[in-house]
Amino acid sequence: MLTGTAHLFIPGPTNVPADVQRAMIVPMQDHRAPEFGALLQPVLAGLKPVFGTREAQIALLPGSGTAAWEAAITNTLNAGDKVLMARHGQFSALWADMAQAMGLQVEIIDVAWGAPCPVREVERRLGADRHGEIRAVFVTHNETATGVTSDVGAVRHALDACFHDALLFVDGVSSIGSIPFEMDQWGVDMAVAGSQKGLMCPAGLGILAASPRALAAMENSHMPRSFLNLRAMLAAHEGGSFCFTPPAQLLHGLRAALTRLHSEGLENVFARHHRLAEGVRAGVAALGLSTVAEHRIFASDTVTAIRTPHGIDAREVISIARTRYNTHFGGGLGPLAGKAFRIGHLGDLNEGMCLTALGIAELSLKAAGAPVTLGAGITAAQHIFAGEAQAPALSIAAE
Amino acid sequence: MLTGTAHLFIPGPTNVPADVQRAMIVPMQDHRAPEFGALLQPVLAGLKPVFGTREAQIALLPGSGTAAWEAAITNTLNAGDKVLMARHGQFSALWADMAQAMGLQVEIIDVAWGAPCPVREVERRLGADRHGEIRAVFVTHNETATGVTSDVGAVRHALDACFHDALLFVDGVSSIGSIPFEMDQWGVDMAVAGSQKGLMCPAGLGILAASPRALAAMENSHMPRSFLNLRAMLAAHEGGSFCFTPPAQLLHGLRAALTRLHSEGLENVFARHHRLAEGVRAGVAALGLSTVAEHRIFASDTVTAIRTPHGIDAREVISIARTRYNTHFGGGLGPLAGKAFRIGHLGDLNEGMCLTALGIAELSLKAAGAPVTLGAGITAAQHIFAGEAQAPALSIAAE
Amino acid sequence: MLTGTAHLFIPGPTNVPADVQRAMIVPMQDHRAPEFGALLQPVLAGLKPVFGTREAQIALLPGSGTAAWEAAITNTLNAGDKVLMARHGQFSALWADMAQAMGLQVEIIDVAWGAPCPVREVERRLGADRHGEIRAVFVTHNETATGVTSDVGAVRHALDACFHDALLFVDGVSSIGSIPFEMDQWGVDMAVAGSQKGLMCPAGLGILAASPRALAAMENSHMPRSFLNLRAMLAAHEGGSFCFTPPAQLLHGLRAALTRLHSEGLENVFARHHRLAEGVRAGVAALGLSTVAEHRIFASDTVTAIRTPHGIDAREVISIARTRYNTHFGGGLGPLAGKAFRIGHLGDLNEGMCLTALGIAELSLKAAGAPVTLGAGITAAQHIFAGEAQAPALSIAAE
Amino acid sequence: MLTGTAHLFIPGPTNVPADVQRAMIVPMQDHRAPEFGALLQPVLAGLKPVFGTREAQIALLPGSGTAAWEAAITNTLNAGDKVLMARHGQFSALWADMAQAMGLQVEIIDVAWGAPCPVREVERRLGADRHGEIRAVFVTHNETATGVTSDVGAVRHALDACFHDALLFVDGVSSIGSIPFEMDQWGVDMAVAGSQKGLMCPAGLGILAASPRALAAMENSHMPRSFLNLRAMLAAHEGGSFCFTPPAQLLHGLRAALTRLHSEGLENVFARHHRLAEGVRAGVAALGLSTVAEHRIFASDTVTAIRTPHGIDAREVISIARTRYNTHFGGGLGPLAGKAFRIGHLGDLNEGMCLTALGIAELSLKAAGAPVTLGAGITAAQHIFAGEAQAPALSIAAE
Repeated sequence: MLTGTAHLFIPGPTNVPADVQRAMIVPMQDHRAPEFGALLQPVLAGLKPVFGTREAQIALLPGSGTAAWEAAITNTLNAGDKVLMARHGQFSALWADMAQAMGLQVEIIDVAWGAPCPVREVERRLGADRHGEIRAVFVTHNETATGVTSDVGAVRHALDACFHDALLFVDGVSSIGSIPFEMDQWGVDMAVAGSQKGLMCPAGLGILAASPRALAAMENSHMPRSFLNLRAMLAAHEGGSFCFTPPAQLLHGLRAALTRLHSEGLENVFARHHRLAEGVRAGVAALGLSTVAEHRIFASDTVTAIRTPHGIDAREVISIARTRYNTHFGGGLGPLAGKAFRIGHLGDLNEGMCLTALGIAELSLKAAGAPVTLGAGITAAQHIFAGEAQAPALSIAAE
Repeated sequence: MLTGTAHLFIPGPTNVPADVQRAMIVPMQDHRAPEFGALLQPVLAGLKPVFGTREAQIALLPGSGTAAWEAAITNTLNAGDKVLMARHGQFSALWADMAQAMGLQVEIIDVAWGAPCPVREVERRLGADRHGEIRAVFVTHNETATGVTSDVGAVRHALDACFHDALLFVDGVSSIGSIPFEMDQWGVDMAVAGSQKGLMCPAGLGILAASPRALAAMENSHMPRSFLNLRAMLAAHEGGSFCFTPPAQLLHGLRAALTRLHSEGLENVFARHHRLAEGVRAGVAALGLSTVAEHRIFASDTVTAIRTPHGIDAREVISIARTRYNTHFGGGLGPLAGKAFRIGHLGDLNEGMCLTALGIAELSLKAAGAPVTLGAGITAAQHIFAGEAQAPALSIAAE
Repeated sequence: MLTGTAHLFIPGPTNVPADVQRAMIVPMQDHRAPEFGALLQPVLAGLKPVFGTREAQIALLPGSGTAAWEAAITNTLNAGDKVLMARHGQFSALWADMAQAMGLQVEIIDVAWGAPCPVREVERRLGADRHGEIRAVFVTHNETATGVTSDVGAVRHALDACFHDALLFVDGVSSIGSIPFEMDQWGVDMAVAGSQKGLMCPAGLGILAASPRALAAMENSHMPRSFLNLRAMLAAHEGGSFCFTPPAQLLHGLRAALTRLHSEGLENVFARHHRLAEGVRAGVAALGLSTVAEHRIFASDTVTAIRTPHGIDAREVISIARTRYNTHFGGGLGPLAGKAFRIGHLGDLNEGMCLTALGIAELSLKAAGAPVTLGAGITAAQHIFAGEAQAPALSIAAE
Repeated sequence: MLTGTAHLFIPGPTNVPADVQRAMIVPMQDHRAPEFGALLQPVLAGLKPVFGTREAQIALLPGSGTAAWEAAITNTLNAGDKVLMARHGQFSALWADMAQAMGLQVEIIDVAWGAPCPVREVERRLGADRHGEIRAVFVTHNETATGVTSDVGAVRHALDACFHDALLFVDGVSSIGSIPFEMDQWGVDMAVAGSQKGLMCPAGLGILAASPRALAAMENSHMPRSFLNLRAMLAAHEGGSFCFTPPAQLLHGLRAALTRLHSEGLENVFARHHRLAEGVRAGVAALGLSTVAEHRIFASDTVTAIRTPHGIDAREVISIARTRYNTHFGGGLGPLAGKAFRIGHLGDLNEGMCLTALGIAELSLKAAGAPVTLGAGITAAQHIFAGEAQAPALSIAAE
């Protein structure tokens, strides 16, 4: 029987803080009563700075981040529209699949899993798009499968450099609330988040922020939509409600989570995620392991995907951690299955938790046969946390 | 400041039992871990008898009942398909709107709000459909807006009598789990429920049961779908998982709620709903009020919509109940706004709660100026609950 | 299987409000950390106005109100000391037993169960106490067994009229927080409460307020005490802590409950208890039943003890309510067993809950064979709640 | 603002497992209803094997372990009785103080804080007690202040060797439920535990197990007692209830905690505590620190008290851990204040948590100026947890 805290280091759902958990324990309430608006409005208002926006409108979409991805598409585009995107991990691949399933023409730039969105190639394609056929560029801000953060601002520069007016859609599911996201500054038109990552709530809500340009594009979009009708939801929110019965308990949780984020201060939240991530990365490097992220310059501050040494099945590592140590790591997805495991380090986290993650990873790797030195990783992280070391250079994995 | 129990008599979300509430207070967990299937499978298995099916496959769709409505359409039909349905309340109207938004050709039979699905007219239309253009018949089993239950079995008979092979889709959101639902026996092809009514959980999950015929129809359906891809979700469920991060806390709640339902015994659950509804209806009649349901023979056992006397604004009644007595009634929807209020009497309910509902309704009606005799309604309900009276005939409202 | 809300009408523990329940769901914490004082101090400060005191010091005694009763004795008196008290119900009887067990010489004034503390007789005894042998007078402010409130202020007048300097100890377990209590004004020296009645928390804390005179008396008290050492606990509280590991979750609950009480306003809390009690009493009278309280002038606003008609076993009434209607009434205690049942109407309560109490009492009485008219009691209460009636005179029971 | 899990390593209250926390979220209930016994009985039955007894009777005493200490005294002894005990830490000192406060004549054997109960000296004193004046021997099984476990079985041997019939009282507050306790085998007459240590619940219940001999001694005990009247409580428990309103939520928690302990299996629970403690001790030794426990042979498996190096204030270490790392260590008590800090490693614990404890202790010690090598302790613990090392010898601290 497993005992003690279940150490959860998957990159979402993340650990729900005690006060957020508590806030969700509510009797059911009438979602059509006037009081409901008093619950919804501060949630919408509190989300705006987290998205880095004053101009966008925010919709809460019961379902998940996937629902918000779909809503971004079906409310602004039309069947046959061309969109441009990089595919460099499981989640960008799934978004591309969705776009195709919804009838878009998806121009895909395939790069290595472990690379970020290739901005120069994006710029080249945009520049080549003489007739402005590309209606939108999709960017996966943080590829949760590979632990790679892409430079959304640079994509904006690319668009501007080409005087291209494509919409810019960004999947921020595993970034928003944990690392800087500047919707207005970067000119993002549709930004997608979920309740269960940096926002520290259970899954169940997709969150979509739409820029004025995106709202304008909705006028000319005629894809079939009903459950995910963004215009209807925004109008309902305006009146303090939802189009249908919402998961009110998640709104209570989100309100409490936003209070936490703003109490800590977003700058401090981001700095903390960076510090903790540096510790994890220092630990990984000290163990002689490589990350899936090809270079530390775009290594994600919310999740680290770690390659297991040759001959060591990452699934075995994960299984040992789970069954012996009550510790949960993320698995390698798609082509990384068995080759990598992931440590999520986002949301409500601190130094002690990261030490546990590394310490149990070491024990599990060793038990699985990997030639790691027990304590090496955790010690490196401690030096980071003690402020004594800069994170060492990572060995860059050859794909 | 309001004190005491908040008495919730809206027809959903319903009161969450203490043990279901407790079951949902869980640390986050890895939805890709092997243990997750051990949570999901009993939920799927426990739902089947609630839907009255052995043959159907069940999908849990994060979102709401509305999501399940849409999934029923987009996974089995094609744009331009003709569907037949009655419109006799807010929810049948919304479903019709959705069907149109998704590109279906909707043949609507408009009948009075307060009438059930007009089976003879349905049969007539089916009989007239010589070329089998009608691909599906939609039935709102329980119109939550009017408190009217329709006879799904009779619609099946109509289909059979016409040798018509249209699919039969049923909205059971406010019926399933509270009143008998016989999916297999009635030949229902798509049945839709939600977590927040008879299943006594918070909102957040739509539930869709698909018959073998519906599953077969999926082969020929090509509507764009991704978030609500039923085939993908059923395959994921088969492996003990979801297509994307699910609201796991609701699965814990649903498991506990199903344990309650099956411990009580479905027959007893249905009998209880009928007994309590009879009490509420007896009370309404004793107060000299009429129900929106035109005849008691199709009055719903889960919700009663009550017309306020001429000159009495139902919104005022609702507001008094809420602000003075911490009691929540449902409002009149659409054309019934201001003309009716609703008492939801479904889910985790007992006699004492129904007495509160009637007692506070009396006080609120009187305070709003209605000529009701305090105590008359509640006394009539007590006689029902004491087993001393049969429910008296209701006055049937002229529309 | 019982369904729906469990209607709890015992006179404690009372219904815990949702926000108080939520506040108690806390991770364990270090009770020796500096933060702990930040939890304790507002609880102590918030209790003072509830006790009607600025001068007293308050101690939280893990255990129960019984612990606080004992601490009041063992910290201020000495073995052999004479104390004067009336015995007119189960709880005054138990306190007398305790005083004897602790070695006091207890001069008991026995009056009927249903009568209040006989102030004139108290005054007579005090006047006759020429040598000042009576060291303390014990008053049970609210006899929970009989539903009778005694006049503490009048006892103070009696003491003053006799120029008697006995200490005045008051059991306010079922009164404090629900009806006016004026510790300073009445010159109460030791006032005892518990967490589980008007303070709306679970049981587990006795609360003791000690006047400056009581604190002075502690100098000369030499009874053995350790767990209940009041001086040590007050000193610990002064430093923000306890003498031993406290039930911290109850402090979180108490803080939330005090926030509720002060948000509602104590005057409003007391008015509400009176209004609801008037409704219950009107209902009892309308049913032709008599209360154990001999006269409405001293009928308690927190609990009503109701005599069952001749030949009707109150235990049967209680059992029917519990097993058929998921409703819990208090039993008759001691000589009242089988002859009376009690409706607690204190703490977090509203009109709808009182209607349920009366409605289910009617159904249960009738099922047990009592000749009550269904609806009569509840209707009378509704008229009180609607502001249309004054509470009618109660028939006074001959003991 | 502190983020992430609050890492709690005080030696009680301990971390409450999620399922125990959940079990305590209950509506209030009638403690006099027949159902209440169904809650109490399995708790009493489940506790017996944890105490290692079939013969003893168990009483749950609302309050704390301190209350149970007192009840053990006041229900079996008389003022003036002589008792024999060692004083070798804060908790044995407090128990001695209590015994004196309650009027006992306490023969104290003072030994170093860090030593266990000196069994030979106990035996010498018993042998010297020709007239059998010693009525009871008190043993602190696990001195929580020093992290020292005493050999209760050896004290029994001493009693038997001297043919002495003194009662044997044992404080098992921080041992019972975590390390082996054999009440029957060791001939313990009164064993004391609390809800908040190995039993993984919040504080609020003292637990007292009384042997048949202790029960017999109650016949001749005449100390004043009322709140802590053991005979009355045992009689109440026999009937499924308490003498006064109990903290029912703790009973729900205790039932869930006992289910956990018995599901894991007591042998496994004890083995786990030993393994984790070995890891912590290996870590402490690797850091070059000494424990307060003078020899590893009696080092406690539930708490380790660690001396800070000369010149390093342990309070500073604790403060750094709390304010920078959201981690809570126990302080040095009494003469150990500032000289030692304590890591509680009992209750619901696993390897990852112990790694955090050591890792944060290292960071905090270093930040406070101690010459520790980051990672050294944690690495040593990992080797223990990996099964690769035996715990190294500890340096024995010179007092």
